[in-house]
Amino acid sequence: MLNLGTFGILGGDRRQISLIEGLAQDGLNVYVTGFENANFSDSVTKASIEETIENSKYIVFPLPATKDSSTLYAPFSKNKIFLDDKIANNLSNKKIFCGISRSLTKTSKNFKKLQIFDYAKREEFAIRNAIPTAEGALEIAMREYLGTINGSRCLIAGFGRVGKALSMVLWGMRANVVVSARKPEDIAHIKSQNYTAILTSEIKKTTGYDIIFNTIPHVIFDAHTLAKCAQNSIIIDLASYPGGVDFEAASRLKIKSIHALSLPGKIAPKTAGAIIKSTIYDIINEEAINE
Amino acid sequence: MLNLGTFGILGGDRRQISLIEGLAQDGLNVYVTGFENANFSDSVTKASIEETIENSKYIVFPLPATKDSSTLYAPFSKNKIFLDDKIANNLSNKKIFCGISRSLTKTSKNFKKLQIFDYAKREEFAIRNAIPTAEGALEIAMREYLGTINGSRCLIAGFGRVGKALSMVLWGMRANVVVSARKPEDIAHIKSQNYTAILTSEIKKTTGYDIIFNTIPHVIFDAHTLAKCAQNSIIIDLASYPGGVDFEAASRLKIKSIHALSLPGKIAPKTAGAIIKSTIYDIINEEAINE
Amino acid sequence: MLNLGTFGILGGDRRQISLIEGLAQDGLNVYVTGFENANFSDSVTKASIEETIENSKYIVFPLPATKDSSTLYAPFSKNKIFLDDKIANNLSNKKIFCGISRSLTKTSKNFKKLQIFDYAKREEFAIRNAIPTAEGALEIAMREYLGTINGSRCLIAGFGRVGKALSMVLWGMRANVVVSARKPEDIAHIKSQNYTAILTSEIKKTTGYDIIFNTIPHVIFDAHTLAKCAQNSIIIDLASYPGGVDFEAASRLKIKSIHALSLPGKIAPKTAGAIIKSTIYDIINEEAINE
Amino acid sequence: MLNLGTFGILGGDRRQISLIEGLAQDGLNVYVTGFENANFSDSVTKASIEETIENSKYIVFPLPATKDSSTLYAPFSKNKIFLDDKIANNLSNKKIFCGISRSLTKTSKNFKKLQIFDYAKREEFAIRNAIPTAEGALEIAMREYLGTINGSRCLIAGFGRVGKALSMVLWGMRANVVVSARKPEDIAHIKSQNYTAILTSEIKKTTGYDIIFNTIPHVIFDAHTLAKCAQNSIIIDLASYPGGVDFEAASRLKIKSIHALSLPGKIAPKTAGAIIKSTIYDIINEEAINE
Repeated sequence: MLNLGTFGILGGDRRQISLIEGLAQDGLNVYVTGFENANFSDSVTKASIEETIENSKYIVFPLPATKDSSTLYAPFSKNKIFLDDKIANNLSNKKIFCGISRSLTKTSKNFKKLQIFDYAKREEFAIRNAIPTAEGALEIAMREYLGTINGSRCLIAGFGRVGKALSMVLWGMRANVVVSARKPEDIAHIKSQNYTAILTSEIKKTTGYDIIFNTIPHVIFDAHTLAKCAQNSIIIDLASYPGGVDFEAASRLKIKSIHALSLPGKIAPKTAGAIIKSTIYDIINEEAINE
Repeated sequence: MLNLGTFGILGGDRRQISLIEGLAQDGLNVYVTGFENANFSDSVTKASIEETIENSKYIVFPLPATKDSSTLYAPFSKNKIFLDDKIANNLSNKKIFCGISRSLTKTSKNFKKLQIFDYAKREEFAIRNAIPTAEGALEIAMREYLGTINGSRCLIAGFGRVGKALSMVLWGMRANVVVSARKPEDIAHIKSQNYTAILTSEIKKTTGYDIIFNTIPHVIFDAHTLAKCAQNSIIIDLASYPGGVDFEAASRLKIKSIHALSLPGKIAPKTAGAIIKSTIYDIINEEAINE
Repeated sequence: MLNLGTFGILGGDRRQISLIEGLAQDGLNVYVTGFENANFSDSVTKASIEETIENSKYIVFPLPATKDSSTLYAPFSKNKIFLDDKIANNLSNKKIFCGISRSLTKTSKNFKKLQIFDYAKREEFAIRNAIPTAEGALEIAMREYLGTINGSRCLIAGFGRVGKALSMVLWGMRANVVVSARKPEDIAHIKSQNYTAILTSEIKKTTGYDIIFNTIPHVIFDAHTLAKCAQNSIIIDLASYPGGVDFEAASRLKIKSIHALSLPGKIAPKTAGAIIKSTIYDIINEEAINE
Repeated sequence: MLNLGTFGILGGDRRQISLIEGLAQDGLNVYVTGFENANFSDSVTKASIEETIENSKYIVFPLPATKDSSTLYAPFSKNKIFLDDKIANNLSNKKIFCGISRSLTKTSKNFKKLQIFDYAKREEFAIRNAIPTAEGALEIAMREYLGTINGSRCLIAGFGRVGKALSMVLWGMRANVVVSARKPEDIAHIKSQNYTAILTSEIKKTTGYDIIFNTIPHVIFDAHTLAKCAQNSIIIDLASYPGGVDFEAASRLKIKSIHALSLPGKIAPKTAGAIIKSTIYDIINEEAINE
């Protein structure tokens, strides 16, 4: 572990609470702003945004930093905390970590002048979040499907990070796993784990799925495909807005479909916070090496 | 498949609906009573209890047959259906399947004269239900625990059917699995799957679990043990009433504890119905062989 | 760990060498006889059979104790070591552990007067040895089969201890696993792990296996069954002599068949020795409890 | 499946025999040269190299095409088959598939003028071959290690294709899996499967491995590292020549080390041939799409 300086955590939800506890457990000093309604161990100091910034070497914004382009996203705060030019100016000379950094610049253009490390853009962040995403998808499937996952027939559309994590989880649960992909190397990869591989373009020719998980961010499951292959299925769409399912057609066809987004923060905030922490550590490590 | 006669299904919940659909899909004639509020495919005939009995070779009671020692357990029925001496008399010469058959005799002593096969007492019924029980326990754990199952540290107290199924499921989810047992052969079995094995009597000397699953039907987790090893854990008790956890002590110690019973019917009625069906087929097969 | 006395190890192969090293690592004094051609750590004393017996509280015979009904089975010995009335008499008042204890009584009837604990008869001994047996079977399959285990179609005849261990291993290797059994509860158990279950009596109606593992100790694979279902298979028979395969018919049909016996000692003597050690500890523990 | 033309297979070992049988089973006409000592089904025609080339649309060279820069690699041939300018000229207008195509140009410069598709350079070829490589490594480990893989502590150095396949296999065998990598995203990936992750640069600080698998193609296991972390280990080096192990130092330190190369063709020629076949089909598919 590096000998790190003080961290200042500005706002955030249960993920950020997990991050704060994690930093404190690593023996670091932590200032926090926007957490009046949360409890922490002794080494964590609640403070105003100005104090937190002044006392910290590293400043961490939540994911997202703001939901209204004006105030800090801080559901555990009693009051609104405004992000403005002055706050941005105070942050010069700080190492700043942020989830979706462009959201910050909507609050003040001065954020553009700062050196901001976007932890949500890091490859390892995405890889590790694929696990809580897959577990969240499984939890939804367990809640909605009337049979057991064991022995069920599951289709996963797409073999990116989430598709890979989901196939691992479903195989571990003893489901019968079918995965679709487009590229020959992905098809090879799917087969090399002894799952059934199909071309994404041929999903519409297949049928008999109990649960369908989509991870592809454009409409794969249009009315035609739904009518062909999903009549007796539940569909869980994990692709970001607008997703890969024609939800209106699904509703018309009486196919149960769920659009499940931002699962890590919802179903496993503790793990999601630990992932933010370790990604920030990775960035600090690299910076130290490059200095 | 044997060339079977008509089945009559008397009451029951979504498990029995799954059983009815399964029998119909196997090409059998099915009469049903107590399902006014349910829909079935064409080969299923809704009828009065008298008609159903008259037309059927096999009669299936639900699990449990009655909840009030007087009327049939039939949540999908519009009206109450009374079980009495006359009904019992009508059933002579029928092959009767029932879940917990002693509940029937509370409605009429005449049931004692009948040949009733208790499917819930069969070994394969218990073995197959261990899977939906384990998945139900996992679903609760996923809902309650703030981290991912992947990488979590789980204790399973007891290595009977449910303990075995649960360890399989948790290992498949990439948890770190610790299992307790009493007998050397169970300890050997646990170790042979590369789980960590501990003696049940020594649970109180261990600590650091994220999630604890109890399957032992007497109090293992008393106040002392809870205080020692479960301070930061969630406890899910799967043992039948009164269970293996001192829930009052848990509440006092602010340890989240859940008593989860009858999971198969609740979380996977479709599978639970299929299990009833295949168990009944097993009984019929054996009877045919023995005839 | 109990505060144990000195162990005397009389003969044996590499399993016993592993046992000796394990006892020494546990901090115990160990006398050994019949190991002139082996090297040990300092806390192990090589001695004559008389000395070893005199100095030890516990005496361990190998598995088997004798191969010729006269001398100790001791492949690492320079000289023959005779087992006779005098040796048997010396052993009164010792706690004696032996693998197949009836083999001892062929050397001298006096052994019948002694209290001998047969570790090979213990349930946990059999359970733990199922793992090296399964791994040995896999090793043979990998050597003989020209494809990968991943994606291959494997039949396991019988779902006892070895069948269970083997199905776990093959599933972990991503094979397609078919298991046969006779009893409904075993069929239920097989299905509950999402393997394909078939009745042992119906093996002859199936076909298309790459590798067949037999664990049933009577002839399941007769000429008729071999011709039907094993034409393009390799057969590995794990059942004790005479096994479950008509080897002559297999040879006539040009089906590659291997009778693989006593695998733990052959392929994993280190593990096999550790299993003997932990089984002896279990017996001592029980005796201590019962005293 | 495309409606393909005749295939001509020029030489090769058991992998190519598996390829030939696979093509024949797919209903294709196949001419073969260099297989006098092998038997095939009826739809395969043995012919001279000139005939094979003349009759075929697709020509497949083995892996490698030549071992002596002059004759075809054809261990099943009775006679030497020379590759020269004339053969190369005959091949114009043919679609040619070859394993390591630069080896061909050593026999005649005229091969440079031809359109040769190198199947061994394809990503899916490498991905699929990682499985037989991992199984081959496991087979060696099982043969050399005196314990069971179950419960053993294994280090895999490197998390490329082979490292990934090997970790999957060892985890499936219930080993304790430690994997080393250099990049944060690989470390994240390793952890996300609940293996123990270490930095490759820190291998030398760790110890206690039963089996070490190297997949990194430069010397990671120098004398210093071997002395520190491999004293009681077996080392299997899967990296291509010169590998990642200082074998001389290992020998001096009495550490058993094995350099295992070209495993797919050696341990699973049937699968290796199927991989060549499906890779060739992929190339033909792409060409057809692009035409």
